[in-house]
Amino acid sequence: MSSAAARTTGQDRLWSVDDHLEDILATVRPLEPIELQLLDAQGCVLVEDVTVPVSLPPFDNSSMDGYAVRVADVSGAGEEYPAVLTVVGDVAAGVGELPHVGPGQAARIMTGAPLPPGAEAVVPVEWTDGGLGEGPVSGMRAHSAAPEGASGQVRVHRPAEARAHVRAKGSDVRAGDLALGAGTVLGPPQLGLLAAIGRGTVRVRPRPRVVVLSTGSELVQPGEPLDTGQIYDSNSFALCAAARDAGAIAYRVGAVADDAETLRSTIEDQLIRADLVVTTGGVSVGAYDVVKEALSSVGDEDEEGAGVDFRKLAMQPGKPQGFGSIGPDHTPLLALPGNPVSSYVSFELFVRPAIRTLMGVDDVHRPTARATLETEKALTSPSGRRQFLRGTYEDGRVTPIGGAGSHLVAALAHADALIVVPEDTTSVEPGTEVEVVLLG
Amino acid sequence: MSSAAARTTGQDRLWSVDDHLEDILATVRPLEPIELQLLDAQGCVLVEDVTVPVSLPPFDNSSMDGYAVRVADVSGAGEEYPAVLTVVGDVAAGVGELPHVGPGQAARIMTGAPLPPGAEAVVPVEWTDGGLGEGPVSGMRAHSAAPEGASGQVRVHRPAEARAHVRAKGSDVRAGDLALGAGTVLGPPQLGLLAAIGRGTVRVRPRPRVVVLSTGSELVQPGEPLDTGQIYDSNSFALCAAARDAGAIAYRVGAVADDAETLRSTIEDQLIRADLVVTTGGVSVGAYDVVKEALSSVGDEDEEGAGVDFRKLAMQPGKPQGFGSIGPDHTPLLALPGNPVSSYVSFELFVRPAIRTLMGVDDVHRPTARATLETEKALTSPSGRRQFLRGTYEDGRVTPIGGAGSHLVAALAHADALIVVPEDTTSVEPGTEVEVVLLG
Repeated sequence: MSSAAARTTGQDRLWSVDDHLEDILATVRPLEPIELQLLDAQGCVLVEDVTVPVSLPPFDNSSMDGYAVRVADVSGAGEEYPAVLTVVGDVAAGVGELPHVGPGQAARIMTGAPLPPGAEAVVPVEWTDGGLGEGPVSGMRAHSAAPEGASGQVRVHRPAEARAHVRAKGSDVRAGDLALGAGTVLGPPQLGLLAAIGRGTVRVRPRPRVVVLSTGSELVQPGEPLDTGQIYDSNSFALCAAARDAGAIAYRVGAVADDAETLRSTIEDQLIRADLVVTTGGVSVGAYDVVKEALSSVGDEDEEGAGVDFRKLAMQPGKPQGFGSIGPDHTPLLALPGNPVSSYVSFELFVRPAIRTLMGVDDVHRPTARATLETEKALTSPSGRRQFLRGTYEDGRVTPIGGAGSHLVAALAHADALIVVPEDTTSVEPGTEVEVVLLG
Repeated sequence: MSSAAARTTGQDRLWSVDDHLEDILATVRPLEPIELQLLDAQGCVLVEDVTVPVSLPPFDNSSMDGYAVRVADVSGAGEEYPAVLTVVGDVAAGVGELPHVGPGQAARIMTGAPLPPGAEAVVPVEWTDGGLGEGPVSGMRAHSAAPEGASGQVRVHRPAEARAHVRAKGSDVRAGDLALGAGTVLGPPQLGLLAAIGRGTVRVRPRPRVVVLSTGSELVQPGEPLDTGQIYDSNSFALCAAARDAGAIAYRVGAVADDAETLRSTIEDQLIRADLVVTTGGVSVGAYDVVKEALSSVGDEDEEGAGVDFRKLAMQPGKPQGFGSIGPDHTPLLALPGNPVSSYVSFELFVRPAIRTLMGVDDVHRPTARATLETEKALTSPSGRRQFLRGTYEDGRVTPIGGAGSHLVAALAHADALIVVPEDTTSVEPGTEVEVVLLG
């Protein structure tokens, strides 16, 4: 306890936003890769170069429903004098033996089916009479309804060049080609490619498991009645949702009362399923800031890198912040302030990049833009603090929404950008160009 | 069977992309709303206007850790002549009875705690000696370590105006205000706001359940050995992932062989968990296009609006398409072509908007942009078809990737945009401005 007490009177250093973030990103390491089923790997980062084991397509195949023919047999074919060929069988995709197509012969063939031996080209069914002897048709009759379509004669009304309507083996990718490089984020088309080349599983960094808990004896679960002096817990909901949006699997523990022993044992319990722990509240200079109190003894202080530091940052909102690692696995922990807007802004600035770093993606930051400030009167900002104001961004213009108060959760719900006012700026005139973080 | 056979020779109308899409969007209706827990409602659309039941904050409270005081008692306070006040107790957030602050008195108060009766302002702890009698401090000592901090005397070194560091009741939102309007998509800050005003559940349109199945006797599960004439099933993976990206809960049924009876019973089985069914393959003019064959009898043909239409579209890739509804609930079904690129492009153009319509979002379409075509030689496109080429987009420029072949799944995996070549355009010169669909 004495160390916790000592902490509250020491550490007067004011950390810059950048130094705090740099400290976090230098500590958090990408998760160890695991082999996952394709659909479990959606949104994950590939950690291996994947090469093509078998060329795609793996064999010459038809790009049309039609007839596989020899070029010489149809060379003079026309509407008036069709080539009349003997149908020697059906070639359906994935089914049975391939017939040999000899001179004067044709095989009925389906899209994707292998070009049978002897055949040199495919004529689409629309260039034929479909074996019905009544002029051009628009399609084949279903095999189940008319099995005789695979026999008899077919009239072909147009010639075809060699390889016409044939997709060549390897024309998509060739065996040995690089399909996807390490570092690729696996979205739908990438998963499609992996499946197409036969990969059932893939080696990726898993989605980080993030445990979110809010602290405060005043917090009540939404939906329950509110007593005097109580408010609803909102941080654990907003931050769980934000962690998911960032790519994590989020576990909401809910609100923990301001009791250091309860908090400590709750966090220790959760470590088993946590790649990252996020707390809100209890990090400031009050007498009941139990996150600070509890976490100073969770880490093994004799071990290098263990323990949580509590800091004051040169930012608004979000001045008090904690960061460190806890437990036997040195699980990273970010302790955010308890005000809803402070905690959300802190999440965007520090937790989201930490989650993205755990995932192993290259670009861990939200996109930023320059925007013209649309406002009636100048914005004011405290000297020496980097201020993050909520705003709405559109077409290079940003409009502040709500005030600077860190409790303005209603305004936050209508914002889609953070307006950044640098440390050395105390006033921003309307029409000034400012930096904005796009919350997307 | 005769009706299926008849279909193959009829329906020569060529549908435009826009007419087909319009037909789909006119048929698919937003899902019926349900009441969901907040975190289950993430990404969903609110169907009710939510008003604020209780003002936020619900009571005047402190924005700082400090001391609640009467203004007159600290009006002349300075470093040299601090105001000396008697501490009458602690006000922690969410805990206990509030002390009355009389003349010459102060209550130690924590961030978020209610302003006690009698007090008019809060002085931050950093403006005081923290009750230690040794000049300004940087924070309080933890209550558990030093309970005496809530008694004795405190020296205040700076005056405070009335209401200083007090967040007024209702300063965030007032009871009766509109918190969020119907139609709002619930992201992290919106869920935070709903929690903050005490909503434990919320009425939204649920995420659509989309059943994806691919058809083709040639299809093999990735990871299994490939036999002659076989290829891997990739569509069911790519489209499941794409359905999730669009906001759906996706179920991958996998590949079904080209047998109409099996396909029909598989789809009927799946209807219980489907808000939308998506199939790939079997929709063209071949003799084994069993999706066409099977689905013509799944719907009750006597009932208005039931049944699936198979169409030819004026587009490339993706000419053959099926759309309709099946089963007792008239579940919408989109039957896409089987080529991987055709099916993916079809998904983007038709299935994604259908999913977004089921969700009830306003804007169901991908964003589009104008871009300058970066290419060495002119692109060619068939007359009368709207062509969708894969490309990479950056800063107003788009570069085609891969060719026009609908099997070029490797190129698709490296694309982030579709280049749209209109029906009446057969050649696009380098440097031309084109429309692109941003795949995001």
